[in-house]
Amino acid sequence: MTRIVIHEVGPRDGLQMEKQVVPLEKKEAWIRGLMGSGVDIVQVGSFVHPEKVPQMADTDELFRRLTAGKTSSTVLSGLVLNKKGLERGLACGVEMFCMGASASETHSLKNAGMGTEEATRRIIGAAQQAVAAGKPVQVSVQSAFGCGFEGAIPEERVLGMVRAYVAAGLRSISLADTAGHAHPAQVERLFGALRALEPSLQLTCHFHDTYGLGMANIFAAMRSGVTSFETSFAGLGGCPFTRVAAGNVATEDFVHALQREGLREEVDLERLIALARDVAAHFGRELPGRVMKTGPLAAREHA
Amino acid sequence: MTRIVIHEVGPRDGLQMEKQVVPLEKKEAWIRGLMGSGVDIVQVGSFVHPEKVPQMADTDELFRRLTAGKTSSTVLSGLVLNKKGLERGLACGVEMFCMGASASETHSLKNAGMGTEEATRRIIGAAQQAVAAGKPVQVSVQSAFGCGFEGAIPEERVLGMVRAYVAAGLRSISLADTAGHAHPAQVERLFGALRALEPSLQLTCHFHDTYGLGMANIFAAMRSGVTSFETSFAGLGGCPFTRVAAGNVATEDFVHALQREGLREEVDLERLIALARDVAAHFGRELPGRVMKTGPLAAREHA
Repeated sequence: MTRIVIHEVGPRDGLQMEKQVVPLEKKEAWIRGLMGSGVDIVQVGSFVHPEKVPQMADTDELFRRLTAGKTSSTVLSGLVLNKKGLERGLACGVEMFCMGASASETHSLKNAGMGTEEATRRIIGAAQQAVAAGKPVQVSVQSAFGCGFEGAIPEERVLGMVRAYVAAGLRSISLADTAGHAHPAQVERLFGALRALEPSLQLTCHFHDTYGLGMANIFAAMRSGVTSFETSFAGLGGCPFTRVAAGNVATEDFVHALQREGLREEVDLERLIALARDVAAHFGRELPGRVMKTGPLAAREHA
Repeated sequence: MTRIVIHEVGPRDGLQMEKQVVPLEKKEAWIRGLMGSGVDIVQVGSFVHPEKVPQMADTDELFRRLTAGKTSSTVLSGLVLNKKGLERGLACGVEMFCMGASASETHSLKNAGMGTEEATRRIIGAAQQAVAAGKPVQVSVQSAFGCGFEGAIPEERVLGMVRAYVAAGLRSISLADTAGHAHPAQVERLFGALRALEPSLQLTCHFHDTYGLGMANIFAAMRSGVTSFETSFAGLGGCPFTRVAAGNVATEDFVHALQREGLREEVDLERLIALARDVAAHFGRELPGRVMKTGPLAAREHA
């Protein structure tokens, strides 16, 4: 079986949603902990205007600190929304660039200030610039499975965006379920269509657990050839520009599930659980992760 | 596709766990609401010693009230643990009998006061008596996917119990994940083995969401030919004789998921959500169900 890639997005997708700005030192400690747990990629932050999203104002500084003398094999990714963000990211040491456009016109207008077509074109431009700079790039379709404002999103629109990415030479594609509307049959259908389009694509998914289907969708995606999964420690997360926001599937729950299936057993689950508990203690509220509350099953309990 | 059967077990599996005894009238109103929503089966209660489980002391009276002049097509099931319970159930109008034994020796001793083999033999005796009385019977293997005390449960032990049920002429079999240890690959493997044993079995599953895999396991079971699903409104539930207890998958979350997939669209989801909210208000605490908090996706949002 292909190796399952774990992409931790909590420091970006989770912390951008929190009213409270997390001190730089705290963030750095969490990210170093995540890197130490053995997850493959950690998304350190996004490059947005510090006045718009003050929670992400320290992204450049975080990258500088984390890449200085770095020995960990964990890749540090950054989310960029435009060429300006890309330039900031290139300057501070981003190791992998994530960028995307929304398949929902309304979500795109609210989130990026322009429609889907224009946003896709600009993202392709930025992605090609990152590729030219020698950086791995993942491009995504946000709201790929439905939108809190628009409702159902035509699959043809998602496929059209993916075709544009592929035509531009981009091969690492993520479908994000920003609003949490995805259901397993839809996940299998849409990723199946992507594989039919181009079997060599490297596929990633990102599911919010708004309606309780996050983990079921992850398993549906795994059956559909998706090999990379974006999750958030403690189940943090949400998008400020959706109607009903909810967290991502918790990284430690996903790792626990994978280890139940005999996969990724070298990842340090105990460390992930300790980090998730520290995040909950920091914010002083219950967070969605399950295994952080129950504790993991012991090895003798595996079947 | 085969019709998916929804078996609501909250009034039994949920309320047996609550410290607070729910007044008879309240229970009756909830059960009538569940029947009115269009779920196929509602488990009204269990027939246990009223001193041991006072929450279930009114099961006989509930059945008498609910079956008097009954016009609803929803089947009313009752859980019995022994012949004495069976006789009570036959006397008060139970329409379908559920009974089972645990594949975990420790769980069986704690829950039934005898080991797995003896418990299985006695359950078969009671089941045959119910069949002779002309009643539908579902027999189950509890702790089929793992046990909070014993850890992993050998699949051969589960299959041995199912073989004994089948040899006794019993065809409706449920596997219960009492402790919530199940994971999708295991679910597919075990139900696959049951189908290989006897393709004509009518298969039911029952997953607790202890480690966040309940819904993923349901979808894995669906792919493995399971057609009947035990869930609890609001995600109530748990077994007092497990180490870490957690609720079942919430009925309204399951129905919401089914309807996303175009199934069971005639079930009254809004009514289920209202009932789940009423249960949470009654107990005055947050319950695990998701859709009761977010509200359902509207029809226009289906994809």
